[in-house]
Amino acid sequence: MEKKELLYKGKAKEIFATSDPGLVIMKFLDDATAFDGKKKGTIGNKGVINATVTNHVYQMLEKRGIKTHLVERLSDDEMLVKHLEIIPIEVVLRNVVAGSLHRRTGFPEGTELKRAIYEFYYKDDELGDPMINEEHIDVFGWATKEEVDFMRETGFKVNDILVPAFGSVNITLIDYKLEFGRTRDGEVVLADEITPDGCRLWDSVTKEKMDKDRFRRDMGGIEEAYNEAEQRILSIPID
Amino acid sequence: MEKKELLYKGKAKEIFATSDPGLVIMKFLDDATAFDGKKKGTIGNKGVINATVTNHVYQMLEKRGIKTHLVERLSDDEMLVKHLEIIPIEVVLRNVVAGSLHRRTGFPEGTELKRAIYEFYYKDDELGDPMINEEHIDVFGWATKEEVDFMRETGFKVNDILVPAFGSVNITLIDYKLEFGRTRDGEVVLADEITPDGCRLWDSVTKEKMDKDRFRRDMGGIEEAYNEAEQRILSIPID
Repeated sequence: MEKKELLYKGKAKEIFATSDPGLVIMKFLDDATAFDGKKKGTIGNKGVINATVTNHVYQMLEKRGIKTHLVERLSDDEMLVKHLEIIPIEVVLRNVVAGSLHRRTGFPEGTELKRAIYEFYYKDDELGDPMINEEHIDVFGWATKEEVDFMRETGFKVNDILVPAFGSVNITLIDYKLEFGRTRDGEVVLADEITPDGCRLWDSVTKEKMDKDRFRRDMGGIEEAYNEAEQRILSIPID
Repeated sequence: MEKKELLYKGKAKEIFATSDPGLVIMKFLDDATAFDGKKKGTIGNKGVINATVTNHVYQMLEKRGIKTHLVERLSDDEMLVKHLEIIPIEVVLRNVVAGSLHRRTGFPEGTELKRAIYEFYYKDDELGDPMINEEHIDVFGWATKEEVDFMRETGFKVNDILVPAFGSVNITLIDYKLEFGRTRDGEVVLADEITPDGCRLWDSVTKEKMDKDRFRRDMGGIEEAYNEAEQRILSIPID
């Protein structure tokens, strides 16, 4: 698959065209940002780790009936994926209170929720990715009701797969964001990535953070934590 | 009805016990606050205006089948109301973009929504009344699913009554918050107030603001605007 022009440069990924208009190449970068891009840095080997983890997790999900944009891995830090029209909504799944849910509700970080919950955010850097509800999505036309229902249901399905899978390697899946996109046939599939950048992952025993909060909060040991998360997730069987 | 001890002092109202444990007296104050209490002031005659407007609007709503806490007006600035357990959720109804919806989505103030929408906020001054969704309400036990459905449906019913009623006196009902509470029998009824403090009211022709935004934004003419809103709303027939 021939790599052609850069279509999009995000904060941690680049998207390249290919000779097939229905396929693009997603390249994972070592660049790290936080707080809507106000904090910038690099995490050594992150691009490779995130490509490896996403490739593994998306194969696991595909085997369990979740359709994703993954076609195949092309190199250490590159995946061939379906060319999607990204729906401008982040679907956040939460199992344990942390981050903005702590700030929003006052419940302490680490409080276990009695069941998983979802939240919707509007993907807009300038607005700081604000939380929204189904009403906003409908009146501003960001997605159809069917797409919203599908994203919510798929989010819960993904969570039902990943919580026990990650738990089996002593990783507690605290919260994470999912993105979805429309294929050229109008099918909605899971897009983007599932990585320590977009998930909160805590060691189930020590509660040690194995995710981007180490970068956000200047906790050190970032590369080691990403490496450890990668190794554990890779040891989960795909089938 | 004998007025007994002060039970609660809010930012713009006081609640007094009565000899009947099922009833309390709600006294409307001239005190005005904004930005989670960071801005403080007084608006002359506001207590009387807000009592008058709420009394009138709640009678209109009762006539159209909406159950409220209103029992009767006792004096210029006092209403006898049912003693409720307040549900800690603000239900915001919106017809036109303004305020936080403008900041959240970037759409210009004054953009008409293609239909009314609701939002839920968690009533907590220290947290700054954050926006929440149905998931938070459920997992944190702030209200039952039945109560949430009832509040949402009642919000839309109230809106369907008030938009044309206010429109008939050239007031555009931009957005407003409703609160609900449980009676001692567990019935959920409309509580609190409907006033220029908690509603955005624009003159339908001139787009002039007739609400607390004049205080928030130091626009002057506050008392005149509240007076004008009161006079127009009072001219809407109750029946």
